[in-house]
Amino acid sequence: MTLQTHARFVTLEGGEGAGKSTVLSALRGFLLARGHEVVSTREPGGTPLAEQIRGLLLDTHHEPPAPETELLLMFAARAQHVREVILPALQRGAWVISDRFTDSSYAYQGAGRGMDAAFIAALEQRVVGITPAMTLLLDIGVAHGRERTRGRDLAPGGSGPDRIEREQDHFFERVREGFLARAAAEPRRIRVVDATQSVDAVAAEAVAHLQALAVA
Amino acid sequence: MTLQTHARFVTLEGGEGAGKSTVLSALRGFLLARGHEVVSTREPGGTPLAEQIRGLLLDTHHEPPAPETELLLMFAARAQHVREVILPALQRGAWVISDRFTDSSYAYQGAGRGMDAAFIAALEQRVVGITPAMTLLLDIGVAHGRERTRGRDLAPGGSGPDRIEREQDHFFERVREGFLARAAAEPRRIRVVDATQSVDAVAAEAVAHLQALAVA
Ligand SMILES: Nc1ncnc2c1ncn2[C@@H]1O[C@H](COP(=O)(O)OP(=O)(O)OP(=O)(O)O)[C@@H](O)[C@H]1O
Ligand SMILES: Nc1ncnc2c1ncn2[C@@H]1O[C@H](COP(=O)(O)OP(=O)(O)OP(=O)(O)O)[C@@H](O)[C@H]1O
Ligand SMILES: [Mg+2]
Ligand SMILES: [Mg+2]
Repeated sequence: MTLQTHARFVTLEGGEGAGKSTVLSALRGFLLARGHEVVSTREPGGTPLAEQIRGLLLDTHHEPPAPETELLLMFAARAQHVREVILPALQRGAWVISDRFTDSSYAYQGAGRGMDAAFIAALEQRVVGITPAMTLLLDIGVAHGRERTRGRDLAPGGSGPDRIEREQDHFFERVREGFLARAAAEPRRIRVVDATQSVDAVAAEAVAHLQALAVA
Repeated sequence: MTLQTHARFVTLEGGEGAGKSTVLSALRGFLLARGHEVVSTREPGGTPLAEQIRGLLLDTHHEPPAPETELLLMFAARAQHVREVILPALQRGAWVISDRFTDSSYAYQGAGRGMDAAFIAALEQRVVGITPAMTLLLDIGVAHGRERTRGRDLAPGGSGPDRIEREQDHFFERVREGFLARAAAEPRRIRVVDATQSVDAVAAEAVAHLQALAVA
């Protein structure tokens, strides 16, 4: 492995409705209160071009992408995000918290769509080159996560579920197993958090992991 | 190499204004007159999604893509184009003529932007998987090609040069050398045509190459 680990780089992973955006706010608040600069961002996206790639990935105004196309679009957006946003922020000493990162590609395009993990690793090495010091995997059952996002998806004026959110439960089961397998393989970096707990309990656990990291 | 060569698959390569679109019409006419089904297409693009990726590659409404981003977007579009258009057409017995294909990535993103040829080859193997039986490389000096497209770029209602067309001459010199190096390495597949000749002379030479291929 020749990936460079960045001490102030943290990512949040997990299925739909696990609570990634909620935890991101909690971590951000914790760091800001201690006087740190914090860049919070998301994938796919994070730059104007990468957000346009996100649009192509998630909308349904064209034929569905082949698994290979989906994988390369994800890494195209990530290549841009790393170079335009993440590395410049880390280099000036900011913390960067990203709502999803490369682990999502292993889980969704790898475990979910069946793309070869060795090819994903080659893309990671060649166009990403960095890895977070800590990844919080918010783990929750597929039906439970889906339940949490239902209100948002049905809200008046909401856009409804996007192309990936419309997949069947067995797809999301493979994604969940893919995330858990990565956590088992990299237990020092990836911390599994039981995301079925209350918002406060999940946030407290996430902040405790961050404190341990900041002290270490 | 594990690329599959397809007998009825022909690609046209060369710099801006070399005459690719002009030759494509001539080859298409020749094949149609002999009763063949012909699918003529272009890259980047060729499907609704791939044309939207083309838009992201060529427009200037967002920050410029990093070389890695540009390379992955090109291959994302190509992965889709191969699966949605090229392979289905070849499988039903049609001829496919593409205005640009993978050689353009070696020339523009490789020789032009400095991306590693071994990584481009890995993408080609993993997400493209096919190669044309014949590629015509229309070779012309950079200034001469630019001269030919000037009228189009300045035409009223024209959109002007796109992001890649706005590069400096030394970029296009590297692209030209990149194409010629590929032709030297694969002389059986890639036939260099002197594109400074008249339209009729270039078309006649291109058709002669196609006839030789169709008979072989
Ligand atoms: N621990 C929790 N307990 C109960 N509800 C929660 C919890 N965490 C988040 N929620 C609620 O569940 C919904 C989804 O949470 P959130 O948007 O943070 O998840 P997400 O992982 O970012 O989802 P997505 O993948 O769709 O972006 C929100 O309405 C949020 O308020
Ligand atoms: N052999 C030729 N001699 C003179 N003019 C030519 C010749 N071939 C093409 N042209 C003219 O040069 C211009 C560019 O040709 P064409 O559009 O076929 O090139 P192209 O390689 O497809 O360019 P681009 O890369 O911009 O798509 C057109 O106006 C065309 O009519
Ligand atoms: Mg979210
Ligand atoms: Mg043309």
